[in-house]
This record gives sequence, structure tokens and C-alpha cells, in this order.
Amino acid sequence: MNTIFQKIIAREIPANIIYEDERVLAFLDNSPIRKGHTLIIPKHPYVDIFDIEPDTFAHIAKLAQKIAQTLKETVGARGVNLHMNNGSEAGQDVFHAHLHVIPRFERNEAFENPEHETYEEGEATHLAEMLYKNLNKA
Amino acid sequence: MNTIFQKIIAREIPANIIYEDERVLAFLDNSPIRKGHTLIIPKHPYVDIFDIEPDTFAHIAKLAQKIAQTLKETVGARGVNLHMNNGSEAGQDVFHAHLHVIPRFERNEAFENPEHETYEEGEATHLAEMLYKNLNKA
Repeated sequence: MNTIFQKIIAREIPANIIYEDERVLAFLDNSPIRKGHTLIIPKHPYVDIFDIEPDTFAHIAKLAQKIAQTLKETVGARGVNLHMNNGSEAGQDVFHAHLHVIPRFERNEAFENPEHETYEEGEATHLAEMLYKNLNKA
Repeated sequence: MNTIFQKIIAREIPANIIYEDERVLAFLDNSPIRKGHTLIIPKHPYVDIFDIEPDTFAHIAKLAQKIAQTLKETVGARGVNLHMNNGSEAGQDVFHAHLHVIPRFERNEAFENPEHETYEEGEATHLAEMLYKNLNKA
């Protein structure tokens, strides 16, 4: 199974990457619920939470914290949702495990408001550069 | 700030507890999105992801994996959503950090379908007993 995420890891498809280490990759979702919406994936193609190696999942959780803080400092997020769909019954669409980190700016009910936003030309690239710099400076 | 979760930890309010150790508590949500919907909380009253101590958050992530697997084996979940609201702008209602683990049984879009289910008399207690047994046997 060669998903779009494996192509992003292999640099066969471009992505706005904001963090990378030997185990994980984080990049901007192209169809953000809110601008700055980030996906964190393991580099190994674990399918979902049932499959992922526990220490790798714990590493992803800690990175989600850092990204949440960086979204606060960099794009002025007031809140953040974490979300992960595991299994098609739970709405998973790409079968390579991924955790959503979604910045929130105004009061917004958690499970509603599913409409997505659109980046203008160059906007996602610029945002990713700022996030990358702030995530990797410490 | 003394939230309902601190009262649950102190046993001042009853809850259907399915897991407990020195750092965390997991119990059934009284208003489940799907039956088996579990909340995992740190015992220390961290407010949200911005506040929580990283190793405690990693511990919660690993427990979420175990609970996801147990929901599969015990109640026949086909999929699982993880969800965490941080900040009122992100829909957080109780200001003590909590991670939702929500079993899914049929195809269901991730951010839609917010209606909740209701436990019948004794049902949540019975379910919690089964989950507790399976989570604590290994």
C-alpha cells in the first residue's frame, strides 16, 4: 500500500513540511479546517492507532504539544483540537496513521463546523516556513 | 478551580472507572458519542495540552492505544476516534485536560454526527466492569 503520505515522505509529492526527525514528519494539511492545520505522521507506514509502535505514538503526542504551542505563538491560535481517525468507520481516509493538530481562533463547537478553508497563493509556504523556524529553534 | 473531574478523582462523584494508576484515570463519558466513549485525564489538574507535563501526556497517549484495542476486543469497535479540545475556542468545556477515546461501529464522518447516545440502567456499569477487567489483565 503506497499512500499519498509515503509519497510525501519520499519527496515524490511536495508538502509544506514544518518538522522532521528520524521517526516522524509534520506538514500542513492542504485542505485546512483552520489555517495552520497540521498532520503528524510516523515515517514507518503504520496504518492506525491499533498498529503503531507505542513509543513512536508517544513521540507523536509530545510533538503535537510542541506544535500546539508553536501555533499559539506563531499564528495566534487561542485553542487547539487534536483529532485522529482510526479505521474507515471512524472517518479515516488515508490508511497511514496521522494525527491532526488544528488551531482555533474563535469559539467553535468541537464536532461541528466541518467546512474547510483555502490558502491563497504562497500563503501555506510562508506559514510553513515560520512554523518550521519556530519549531526547530529550541 | 475544582472541576467535576477533580471530584471524580477524589471519589466525591461516582464514575464508571475503567483504568487507574498513579498518574491518570480513565472512565466512561456519561453522554457518549458512542457507547464505550472514554475520557482519559491526568490526576494532576493540568488545564490543557499547553499546560500538561510532556511525559504525562505521552503516558496518556499510550493508554489511549490500549483502550482503543480493548474497545475493539470488548465491545466490537471497528474504528476509534481520538479527540482533544484545548481552550474554549476549541470547544473545551471542562478545564482539566481530557482526551476522548470514541469507539466507532459503522461508517461515520469524522467531524459530523454529533448526537449522543444514552446508557440504559446498569449498562454503563456493566460495560465499565468488562473494560476494567480486560485493561487490567495484561
